[in-house]
Amino acid sequence: MARVRSIPQPAPASLTLTTVLHALGDPVRLELVRRAQATPESTCDALAEGLDVPVPTLSDHWRILREAGVITITADGRHRRARVRAEDLDDRFPGLLAAVLRPGEPR
Amino acid sequence: MARVRSIPQPAPASLTLTTVLHALGDPVRLELVRRAQATPESTCDALAEGLDVPVPTLSDHWRILREAGVITITADGRHRRARVRAEDLDDRFPGLLAAVLRPGEPR
Repeated sequence: MARVRSIPQPAPASLTLTTVLHALGDPVRLELVRRAQATPESTCDALAEGLDVPVPTLSDHWRILREAGVITITADGRHRRARVRAEDLDDRFPGLLAAVLRPGEPR
Repeated sequence: MARVRSIPQPAPASLTLTTVLHALGDPVRLELVRRAQATPESTCDALAEGLDVPVPTLSDHWRILREAGVITITADGRHRRARVRAEDLDDRFPGLLAAVLRPGEPR
């Protein structure tokens, strides 16, 4: 069985609105969040497919999303998997994630 | 009568979600938007009172908010007045502004 572990992430109570908004306020990061929400537990590699962003930039994007509390990253053997912290975000900022991820939302 | 004129601002149809999120994703800008929403047609000077931000930085913040389509700035004689584009934002990104400006929202 692969060793699965969580990469450190902020506690729900420490999430701040401006940090979350800033994390979501980038086209690549918002697209990653949309994809992660659409296909939970995907690998980070699969989620970034076709985005044409250099690997170091992509790592920065994942880090910013994780540190803001928008996504959880899990290390699963050689893979990293991303999951949107929808429940934590809804608890803390009701309605925000739904408004941001509305289907058909202009970007 | 003072000459009142609008400073250029983007058309509603050209507002993009990530630009709006980025504009709101800063503590000073979010505070300016909260205050502008609470006291419509205030002067920009009055809205920035007590924020302890250098004037050039403040000008940048207002510009970013205006260019993102979050606020309208009107030049009223020597004063500039700010108004949140609540209707345009609601039309374009339903629920977003309400979620961001919820009273008691942790910041």
